[in-house]
Amino acid sequence: MEKKIVLTGIKSTGRPHIGNYIGAIKPALQLAENDAYSPYYFIADYHSLTTVQHANQFKDYVYGIAATWLALGLDPEKSTFYRQADVPEVLELAWILSCLTPKGLMNRAHAYKGLIEENRQNGLEQDSGINMGVFTYPILMAADILLFQSDIVPVGKDQIQHVEIARDIAGHFNHIYGETFKMPEYKVDEATSVVPGLDGRKMSKSYNNTIPLFNEEKELEKLIKRIETDSSLPEDPKDPALSSLFLIYKEFASEAQVKRMRERYENGVGWGEVKKELFHVMNAYLETPRQRYIELMNNPKKMDEILLHGAEKARRRARTFLEEVKEKIGC
Amino acid sequence: MEKKIVLTGIKSTGRPHIGNYIGAIKPALQLAENDAYSPYYFIADYHSLTTVQHANQFKDYVYGIAATWLALGLDPEKSTFYRQADVPEVLELAWILSCLTPKGLMNRAHAYKGLIEENRQNGLEQDSGINMGVFTYPILMAADILLFQSDIVPVGKDQIQHVEIARDIAGHFNHIYGETFKMPEYKVDEATSVVPGLDGRKMSKSYNNTIPLFNEEKELEKLIKRIETDSSLPEDPKDPALSSLFLIYKEFASEAQVKRMRERYENGVGWGEVKKELFHVMNAYLETPRQRYIELMNNPKKMDEILLHGAEKARRRARTFLEEVKEKIGC
Repeated sequence: MEKKIVLTGIKSTGRPHIGNYIGAIKPALQLAENDAYSPYYFIADYHSLTTVQHANQFKDYVYGIAATWLALGLDPEKSTFYRQADVPEVLELAWILSCLTPKGLMNRAHAYKGLIEENRQNGLEQDSGINMGVFTYPILMAADILLFQSDIVPVGKDQIQHVEIARDIAGHFNHIYGETFKMPEYKVDEATSVVPGLDGRKMSKSYNNTIPLFNEEKELEKLIKRIETDSSLPEDPKDPALSSLFLIYKEFASEAQVKRMRERYENGVGWGEVKKELFHVMNAYLETPRQRYIELMNNPKKMDEILLHGAEKARRRARTFLEEVKEKIGC
Repeated sequence: MEKKIVLTGIKSTGRPHIGNYIGAIKPALQLAENDAYSPYYFIADYHSLTTVQHANQFKDYVYGIAATWLALGLDPEKSTFYRQADVPEVLELAWILSCLTPKGLMNRAHAYKGLIEENRQNGLEQDSGINMGVFTYPILMAADILLFQSDIVPVGKDQIQHVEIARDIAGHFNHIYGETFKMPEYKVDEATSVVPGLDGRKMSKSYNNTIPLFNEEKELEKLIKRIETDSSLPEDPKDPALSSLFLIYKEFASEAQVKRMRERYENGVGWGEVKKELFHVMNAYLETPRQRYIELMNNPKKMDEILLHGAEKARRRARTFLEEVKEKIGC
């Protein structure tokens, strides 16, 4: 049976934190190990350009993503791992698709609507501060997806609409030019719980409550100590499901460790002890990847090589298919 | 002195008529003969995709443009003559620029505003029938212009705003990333008079009043006979400036012929005679190009070769510069 193509774009707009790891990276890496799938994982640097407009930061974030995924075990031979900007076929397809995309479809995109609502609340002009990259981004994402005839696009709930938009555009093209694009399906991982940040809210760069993945040991320890806990006494029984510490712990500990920790919660355990144990387990888990990450960050040439190799694989496929598409429009 | 780059995009949305010839093709060909300029003339096929969505028609229009310009004497060695879709660097630059383009700038584009006004008058939703290619087109045009560091963009009055938009975007990029793009200048040919169509209104495909450039002889003669004239008698003196026949005649006749015709108008001449003379002069002028045009239309491979040769020249320049741009953004 032909492998199913799973495509994921990774925005390079910040340093990956453990919320990213648990919510996106870990499931993607597990899926990459599954022989039923052919993973296309790419760094969406051209997407990030909508917000990151400083060259050094732009570059640094891109390498940060590449180093993170490779350090955590992504195998560039088993997957197609590339930088979006190294596959210019995406932009060509994006233009073609834009001619088949009703403007109304973009007006209705949630992300855009959120921004104009924010402007409204702040008494600003509707499109104040919104650039055309932000507005047209769903078409770029559709091109990313459709160029590789992707079967599955794993997304967070807030991204479902983008896959639906890709399907709409694909359907419209197929209707005019005949069957061409495969209809992608989105896949929302319901099992993945929201990862709490230092203050108990969802871990997110915008809340400034994250634990970066590859902070050095001392930093990691300090941040874990800052995770908010309730005022219960050590001897009080505690509900693991309501504890940020436990929710993070269970992602890094072995099954046996998790079971034991759950018992300690039920029997009463001091938050200081849990934090110590969490640090111990996380640090052990991240030690080797962290070392690999540092090595990679010191060797951007190596990452360029790996990413260009991925882009070459991607382009071989992309070029053939883009030629087909261009033939259909009469190009 | 370095040659000035003059860039012109030719939309492939119909068969060229003599209005196109007089208003755009002839001045562009004259300019191409001037050693002070390096002409970049391209068939804007990706732009045409916003409206031409049938493969055969799309292709036919593209070849029609190529054959027309070549038949009329465009020298593909002295100019860079290419198909937009053969230079994918344009689309890459268009994406980069779109991240630097405020959405408000597109909202204010005349062409878009004209369309939504039309929808309003017809009681339709604001963006009804408008695709994203139409809406974002000014960015594609900015990329076309800026990719080659164009000095001069000859345009009709309705296109001035597009060059201004390109300047705005270029200025914005230069402001953020440092001096990168040259500021293009538009050039409106004031000398070119409006070419009247069969009914006396401006010759335009949308008025269905055109004289195609390369109709066969008999057809040309028939169409010229259909050009509307006033009811003055042959012996009445006539004002050449008010006569469609004369306005067309002067573009195809020699100076001496024009002078003589002017005298005949002043002394009184029958419209039938003028039409006969106009046909005679136009047909003589177009006979050889028409023959070349037919040969070229029967040899699309030959045209592909010429256009690909042009695209290769264009891409050599485009690639180097795009790399520079990408380096500035951190790519």
